[in-house]
Amino acid sequence: METRIVTLTTDFGSTDHFVGTMRGVILSGNPKAQVVDICNSVTSFDVLDGALTIAHAYRYFPPGTIHLVVVDPGVGSARRPLLVTTSRHFFIAPDNGVLSLVLEQEERVLARHITAEHYFLQPVSTTFHGRDIFAACAGWLSKGLEPDKFGDEITDYVRFSLPKPKMVAERTLKGAVLKVDKFGNLITNLTPENAAALFAANSGLKLTVGQATVTGFQSSYSQGQPGELFGVLNSMGFLEIACNRGAAAHLAKAGRGAEVLVEF
Amino acid sequence: METRIVTLTTDFGSTDHFVGTMRGVILSGNPKAQVVDICNSVTSFDVLDGALTIAHAYRYFPPGTIHLVVVDPGVGSARRPLLVTTSRHFFIAPDNGVLSLVLEQEERVLARHITAEHYFLQPVSTTFHGRDIFAACAGWLSKGLEPDKFGDEITDYVRFSLPKPKMVAERTLKGAVLKVDKFGNLITNLTPENAAALFAANSGLKLTVGQATVTGFQSSYSQGQPGELFGVLNSMGFLEIACNRGAAAHLAKAGRGAEVLVEF
Amino acid sequence: METRIVTLTTDFGSTDHFVGTMRGVILSGNPKAQVVDICNSVTSFDVLDGALTIAHAYRYFPPGTIHLVVVDPGVGSARRPLLVTTSRHFFIAPDNGVLSLVLEQEERVLARHITAEHYFLQPVSTTFHGRDIFAACAGWLSKGLEPDKFGDEITDYVRFSLPKPKMVAERTLKGAVLKVDKFGNLITNLTPENAAALFAANSGLKLTVGQATVTGFQSSYSQGQPGELFGVLNSMGFLEIACNRGAAAHLAKAGRGAEVLVEF
Repeated sequence: METRIVTLTTDFGSTDHFVGTMRGVILSGNPKAQVVDICNSVTSFDVLDGALTIAHAYRYFPPGTIHLVVVDPGVGSARRPLLVTTSRHFFIAPDNGVLSLVLEQEERVLARHITAEHYFLQPVSTTFHGRDIFAACAGWLSKGLEPDKFGDEITDYVRFSLPKPKMVAERTLKGAVLKVDKFGNLITNLTPENAAALFAANSGLKLTVGQATVTGFQSSYSQGQPGELFGVLNSMGFLEIACNRGAAAHLAKAGRGAEVLVEF
Repeated sequence: METRIVTLTTDFGSTDHFVGTMRGVILSGNPKAQVVDICNSVTSFDVLDGALTIAHAYRYFPPGTIHLVVVDPGVGSARRPLLVTTSRHFFIAPDNGVLSLVLEQEERVLARHITAEHYFLQPVSTTFHGRDIFAACAGWLSKGLEPDKFGDEITDYVRFSLPKPKMVAERTLKGAVLKVDKFGNLITNLTPENAAALFAANSGLKLTVGQATVTGFQSSYSQGQPGELFGVLNSMGFLEIACNRGAAAHLAKAGRGAEVLVEF
Repeated sequence: METRIVTLTTDFGSTDHFVGTMRGVILSGNPKAQVVDICNSVTSFDVLDGALTIAHAYRYFPPGTIHLVVVDPGVGSARRPLLVTTSRHFFIAPDNGVLSLVLEQEERVLARHITAEHYFLQPVSTTFHGRDIFAACAGWLSKGLEPDKFGDEITDYVRFSLPKPKMVAERTLKGAVLKVDKFGNLITNLTPENAAALFAANSGLKLTVGQATVTGFQSSYSQGQPGELFGVLNSMGFLEIACNRGAAAHLAKAGRGAEVLVEF
């Protein structure tokens, strides 16, 4: 697999030089690389938010794409840098679970512990491995260096699962808000797989989140009435609490981590 | 016209995977495309803000550029996806008027209703046509697929005009703030075309907006005194209420939609 | 030096068409240019913030890169547009000191006053030289036009130094917060060069900033206890007041410009 596309998913934000510096390091490694942002505004230190972000985007990129994922509160500690190869893509990330939701979707996974320090920027800082290790290795990889040059295979890398909804009473399911998107939609962990009844026609959905009670389910945003909160199956396969041209999070006064109670 | 530049103007923001996913879809269609952001922070659901944004930027791009404009509160409804060809550029957008202010500037316009579903990502979601329809078609178009392959020509696409200032008394003109820019400048709908007297030397301008009264007119930001609000003809051809190294919106306590009264 | 990489460091933000328009102008000049963002969210009108941003990022880019740096509160005044050539890079910027911290790091510097108006977009606005002068010249330069075609050499360009910490009592050093980064880390002007004792093992550091007293020094973020503020030598070589997975600025109630007092 040859490539020139390197994507970025980080919590480095847009107000500092961090992401720009990483772009420079990648391009110094391979001036023909094309650096493409997935998202650099992952919530600070929030590995789950990073995991969701890359998991929803990566498979839309062409074969051979290198995905650099740096949400790395353990920078400078002993947590390992990883290079993961799947059947279509490469991933470079800290070993803290940020790739968990990608790997759930992949059958063939080969993970390596990156130890080849001669590919790092020297001296390696203790506070910016995004620059000194991750971007530097992405540059080399995009130039065609073989993955086995970066380090040995490991299988004990960190993985976590999305928090799953649970029955908390005979007819009550408890889920959670995973994320609030830019429009104020509340993305929950309820899916057709773990809460099929919710998505059936005439489900009789009754759900509470924050200060709101939601009883309607729509198939698109524009079907909702002004100011009305409703459920919708979103483009990532999750139940989302939304409002037509409005911010559900604001109306429900609910945010990331809020409890979602469904009564059947 | 051959092209590899695809621009993005959306309200998808920077805190989610949305724009990254669209970049992936375009690059999967054409790995040689160069995806370039115009602005992804259009105000949510605000078709007028999107229309202003693309209208001020598009003509600075090279011939053959494909402009993808997705401010799409009607996603999932019957509103049509459009492919518009002008003498120099292509535009892909929902049929909700977001291209209105571009088309005002163009003489030769050919609009098509995109119906060629075999170019869409399948299954098409009801909530993210930016990914499944608009980006997918941009990828194909950038590979050189002919516009007529996407659907039939139409002429009844949605268009609107900028709200124009009006005389509301014998010597009083009422305009509006169209947008507040990043610096806090108040961009009004007053132009040399619709309010020529304002821009003349010694116009005797007297204008009120929010809590501010503005009597000065300058030819550049740096001519203003600290804390002083003044009018300036901005780079898009609108009267702007500005402050040298300060935020006029904050000082005047005025925002998008605020009334602007001019007395002659 | 031939190049196709053009970087952007500006205070134009992400909510308007400004940066998109500049990208278009560069690409119209040279459709093969690759425009790469360093940071477009420099604090509005803040030349020092711009100077820090470009100074930390530029040297990570490949030889021949053109760095466009537009923090330009004096737009429309008589301040000069500059083209600066160093041994490895080009810089295009207003002559207001925004390149000062780059030039501190460079031995061979040749600065030109850009006067070749036939390379500007005409008519040149008085409010958006980023588009009409700076981006336009970057496009031409990236196509291989020789630097001496843009104007004559000058040596009296504006330069400033970072504010340096000072002894304000026999055992008290006063520094300042230069910037708060996206994570809430407080970046100070204390460095191993100007305050070596601070960075020694067992320095006995005692520092006050805002409402916080800091006595610990760590070598990486992850060594701190939850809620604890500590000093760390950051990746740019400055003493930073940080918090493991938290925002030091919030905890200390301190921001840009805050006084930092060190007692030895």
